[in-house]
Amino acid sequence: MFMNREQVFNFSAGPSVMPEEVLLKAQADLMNYQGSGMSVMEMSHRSAQYAAIFDETKARFKELFCVPDTHEVLFLQGGASTQFSMVPLNLLPESGSADYAVTGHFSASAMKEARKNGAVRVAADTTEAKHTFIPAQSALSLDPDAAYFHYCANNTIYGTEWQYVPETGSVPLVCDMSSDILSRPVDVSKYGLIYAGAQKNMAPAGLTVVIIRRDLAGHERSNTPLMLSYQRMIDKDSMFNTPPCWCIYMLGLMLQWLETQGGVAGMEQIKRERAAKLYAFLDNSALFTANAQPGSRSDMNVTFRTASPALDAECVSGAAKVGLLNIKGHRVAGGMRASLYNAMPMAGVDALIDYLKEFEVSHHE
Amino acid sequence: MFMNREQVFNFSAGPSVMPEEVLLKAQADLMNYQGSGMSVMEMSHRSAQYAAIFDETKARFKELFCVPDTHEVLFLQGGASTQFSMVPLNLLPESGSADYAVTGHFSASAMKEARKNGAVRVAADTTEAKHTFIPAQSALSLDPDAAYFHYCANNTIYGTEWQYVPETGSVPLVCDMSSDILSRPVDVSKYGLIYAGAQKNMAPAGLTVVIIRRDLAGHERSNTPLMLSYQRMIDKDSMFNTPPCWCIYMLGLMLQWLETQGGVAGMEQIKRERAAKLYAFLDNSALFTANAQPGSRSDMNVTFRTASPALDAECVSGAAKVGLLNIKGHRVAGGMRASLYNAMPMAGVDALIDYLKEFEVSHHE
Repeated sequence: MFMNREQVFNFSAGPSVMPEEVLLKAQADLMNYQGSGMSVMEMSHRSAQYAAIFDETKARFKELFCVPDTHEVLFLQGGASTQFSMVPLNLLPESGSADYAVTGHFSASAMKEARKNGAVRVAADTTEAKHTFIPAQSALSLDPDAAYFHYCANNTIYGTEWQYVPETGSVPLVCDMSSDILSRPVDVSKYGLIYAGAQKNMAPAGLTVVIIRRDLAGHERSNTPLMLSYQRMIDKDSMFNTPPCWCIYMLGLMLQWLETQGGVAGMEQIKRERAAKLYAFLDNSALFTANAQPGSRSDMNVTFRTASPALDAECVSGAAKVGLLNIKGHRVAGGMRASLYNAMPMAGVDALIDYLKEFEVSHHE
Repeated sequence: MFMNREQVFNFSAGPSVMPEEVLLKAQADLMNYQGSGMSVMEMSHRSAQYAAIFDETKARFKELFCVPDTHEVLFLQGGASTQFSMVPLNLLPESGSADYAVTGHFSASAMKEARKNGAVRVAADTTEAKHTFIPAQSALSLDPDAAYFHYCANNTIYGTEWQYVPETGSVPLVCDMSSDILSRPVDVSKYGLIYAGAQKNMAPAGLTVVIIRRDLAGHERSNTPLMLSYQRMIDKDSMFNTPPCWCIYMLGLMLQWLETQGGVAGMEQIKRERAAKLYAFLDNSALFTANAQPGSRSDMNVTFRTASPALDAECVSGAAKVGLLNIKGHRVAGGMRASLYNAMPMAGVDALIDYLKEFEVSHHE
């Protein structure tokens, strides 16, 4: 079945939908970028043309995300999973200990990886409640001497999102923002380190953005692999070797588009409206139930289900037939998931709700 | 100055020129890949559409490069520099020793990185000769008990290339083929591990291809970072986390194009003709001299110079003005460098020689 873009809304959890304007721009310039006679994909990363793309993208990111001068922005590879190792190798001294809040699949993986490198304390763990909520500040068990406190701001799989910034005193906050970065204003000065895989809210897969407070770098262990030293990447402005040039270019186009949406403040309004509409429908539905508890719900990944896995499967396949793609929940969570990243238009949410309403009418006993 | 593609030949050492057909195909399908209603950049890496792209690309690579069933093909991130760490972490036992041949900048870096992880022996070192030649088999100092023998097949910076496969008995060969992979047939069965950054001969920057003999994986050290285990990547078919999807897609298009060129055998003929023409000119020139010694010369990166750095600089900037881009030598080698990767048409070599001839006439005293 051939589908046009207009017939499709892509709710994939990542890689995910990108704005049509951004893709059209990439397409128009693909054969010859600004009269260089070359595609961006063919450019030396050391060339003046590419340096301009890189520098502008980094500057625009810093401006849009309000990154203070105390922090450095890095464009790396390897995804958040590489950061699971890079964080402890650089920030956890051999004699130290780090606090980890486990609120989902990826924060658990991050903690497991840190354990390979030193002492780790569980600051919170919502596994028994199937990760349906985010622990309150008062429920966090904090070590005042921890090397850092690690948490995952938004849990893509379970559909929960931290609604507050943990207070940890002088302990640096380290946050995996892979699935909600650039969706809201963040007071970056509160963080020691933020990392995010780009393939959800920022750019095509293959780029990892790291924002690090400069004084935290430079203390990596002696056996840290060459490419996993933050200090080396700071020293070389992310170009110790060839960076993922095309993804960085695409991030630049995405940031230009984000400006037209009112930046991260504008995006926060949009994302709240999008998610609120869908949650309101789910809360009033007799067939569908949202997984996450109110107060912990993600605006980015709305997870929900019927009472029956068979009905869930029917709902997912029926949606695909009408162009509502990728609403199947992650295999470890089941049910459905609608990812509402920055590029998802409100029309997509409306179309999904219309479909779910019809599905409910035709399937509710 | 606005230039069309037709006015330009891009001699960049990487990222580098790509075939126009490949870029046109990527451009045509960018907004909607095969009626999916999505760009490849927007596709979930777990979707059926993307799985087909991934599987076809991997199968085509194995076929074109004649990868035997004993070996696994991996699509990773982080570039060759990440392999500098990954190789010893996985293949060098704590009590073992590895042999390294140092024939240029990157093989020296690889050896330095291995030293962090264990014992390393220098099997050859051409530093004193400024890396103008490749050591002969008889000049290699080999440890019959080495965990592996590491070399870099083609030295991008110095313009030398191994013209033979080292004989190391039962010691596994580990080879960095970043700058000449897919340019010639390789008997992969002779190798324990081959790795290559994609951005020279294969795809846009952001993808690393690894070919590993399966029995060499699974012996990584206990503290090996999550993403740096070959066995984990084999187990997950390179999708432990989100792979660099767009780059893998572009590799697929490049491989389809390579088939139309007669595969790696066809490419070998073309690359030899290309380089031979340029070396013949240089050897007969009174102004220009090739850096590399005959018998060690690279078909991929032809490095040369005049007797004067000032004249070199004039030659480089004059070339750019007539659309012969990026012929400046690497900063550690100086002079000029013309990279003649797979996608460089013979017309590019002819245009370069014409320019150099004119330059010689007007500048030779």
